[in-house]
Amino acid sequence: MTTSEIKNDIFLRALKGEITERPPVWMMRQAGRYLPDFMKLKEKYPFFERVQNPELATEITIMPIHQVGVDTAILFSDILVIPQAMDCEVQMIPGRGPVIPNPIRSMADVDRLITPPAEEALDYVMAAVRTTKQALNGSVPLIGFAGSPWTILCYMVEGQGSKDFSVAKGFCYSQPEAAHKLLQKITDITIDYLKAKVQAGCDVIQVFDSWGGLLSPEDYQIWSMPYIKQIADAVRPLAPVILFGKGCWYALDSYKAAGASAIGVDWTLSPQKARELVGEQTVLQGNFDPSKLLSPIDVIEREVKKMIDGFGGKHYIANLGHGILPNIPVDHAKAFVNAVKNYH
Amino acid sequence: MTTSEIKNDIFLRALKGEITERPPVWMMRQAGRYLPDFMKLKEKYPFFERVQNPELATEITIMPIHQVGVDTAILFSDILVIPQAMDCEVQMIPGRGPVIPNPIRSMADVDRLITPPAEEALDYVMAAVRTTKQALNGSVPLIGFAGSPWTILCYMVEGQGSKDFSVAKGFCYSQPEAAHKLLQKITDITIDYLKAKVQAGCDVIQVFDSWGGLLSPEDYQIWSMPYIKQIADAVRPLAPVILFGKGCWYALDSYKAAGASAIGVDWTLSPQKARELVGEQTVLQGNFDPSKLLSPIDVIEREVKKMIDGFGGKHYIANLGHGILPNIPVDHAKAFVNAVKNYH
Repeated sequence: MTTSEIKNDIFLRALKGEITERPPVWMMRQAGRYLPDFMKLKEKYPFFERVQNPELATEITIMPIHQVGVDTAILFSDILVIPQAMDCEVQMIPGRGPVIPNPIRSMADVDRLITPPAEEALDYVMAAVRTTKQALNGSVPLIGFAGSPWTILCYMVEGQGSKDFSVAKGFCYSQPEAAHKLLQKITDITIDYLKAKVQAGCDVIQVFDSWGGLLSPEDYQIWSMPYIKQIADAVRPLAPVILFGKGCWYALDSYKAAGASAIGVDWTLSPQKARELVGEQTVLQGNFDPSKLLSPIDVIEREVKKMIDGFGGKHYIANLGHGILPNIPVDHAKAFVNAVKNYH
Repeated sequence: MTTSEIKNDIFLRALKGEITERPPVWMMRQAGRYLPDFMKLKEKYPFFERVQNPELATEITIMPIHQVGVDTAILFSDILVIPQAMDCEVQMIPGRGPVIPNPIRSMADVDRLITPPAEEALDYVMAAVRTTKQALNGSVPLIGFAGSPWTILCYMVEGQGSKDFSVAKGFCYSQPEAAHKLLQKITDITIDYLKAKVQAGCDVIQVFDSWGGLLSPEDYQIWSMPYIKQIADAVRPLAPVILFGKGCWYALDSYKAAGASAIGVDWTLSPQKARELVGEQTVLQGNFDPSKLLSPIDVIEREVKKMIDGFGGKHYIANLGHGILPNIPVDHAKAFVNAVKNYH
């Protein structure tokens, strides 16, 4: 199944810069905890089993296509498969999130990390891509994703989720050489990983810089952007690349300069301002506040229309500004998707 | 002791819009966990005892004046004394942060909250202001602070700290009438509280909108700014008011329009951009990344100089962009303060 044979290709056409009949729509974390069927699988299988078992990953990935009606699938996986492939153990502890029992804190720790061929170390991801593509049967495209090297470093050094990742940032400021070496190692394996994912069948790649917004605009150009650019340069010849940094409104022009096929924005930037920062021709993606999906449905419909108008209606992919929340009623998620589909 | 009798009044002069011989300097959370003497008191007394005992609050407040050399004191207290005064229980659980056992979730919950005279309900704060002013003996000014109504609502509704305060935001989007009534109640008691603090001796007031950055620019004007403006309007005739919103770069012009004596900025906005947004005459305060204090001292010195230059050197108060972190060596905090004092 090649990209050109996909039935609903509105998402791919928008990424090529074409003017589409309406904005394509999908939601970050669309195969997530707000879906009752997902919760059933969550109760039955631990997190990494869902990620590592291709049948389960496929089942989860395709859920929102039928149940919510989005225009693209995104492979159910986790950004922390990369540290795992580097031989850095990651545990997912219910109610607490990811925990890295032996975080990276020195050059020696960095030197111990391995960078095996992603195709082998993460063969279960490639298998999940292949089974998902079969299951989708050309209905919609499939996005594959990775975390930005900076965001992966945050977890590997901090050892767990954090409000400010001050240990990770302290590592960069006090041991810059080790930090850059770590970032380059993550970058190398991530490039290899994303190329393999495209090879296995992913139609589009999205890079998530979930913790980019913890950096100052100047530090972003030191610790995050150069590595994202390497990834964009390497993957762009193979597939469209979407760059999304949470809280990174100041990096939109850098994403554009890096040749992003689309740029994700969160809701801390108004659609008008985002458009102003990148111009009319750049494809933008976002930026509905996920918690606003708790509004009454008529408010959601009104706000979605306002958002699309704000982005100018074209060169635009409708999405949330971050992942959908577990407490969103499925009907409200559907209302979001339908409001985009009914836009005129 | 009146404001005019303060020996080191560089901070007050900067707030009046005067050109000072160098930027005044202080640090958010300067009386905090990075100070070994603070840690000794922390081990001995539970959190709210330190807040409620005027002698302890005074001892903690004046610590950084002598030990780090900042140009102003800020009263050791907590923004959550306001919910407590409203008869909403707050527990401070070590390692977990604030917990509100009975969070606000309905109009009935809002209606049950009381708004007693702050002078009586928070008499221990007024006592702490008076003993601190005595202990300072006119050496430096004293800042009193409060959380913004939006930030207080976040805790009162969510019931605990959170990455996204999605329950609190969901409350606003699904029960807007109850949310606005709650915000107004918090605003009323906060105004009363801050007036009493100035009456008791505080020379300056700072309002912290710690969670303002969770809102879109448009929602900020609905849920946060109108209430901050009420506070600024009420307190400004009595004392200078500093407005600081974490992640609220898009609200700088609103803070300016609200007549802020100074506007705090975090490090996600470059000094140059902050200056560009508010103009040459507006006093700005910030914005060193606290985790950057883990850099070697010569790097701190260089970066501080660059920051001050970026703000244009005048109409400016040097500070961090958020609270100082527990893992900062005292010598590095001193290096920050001294780098400002040695600026030329």
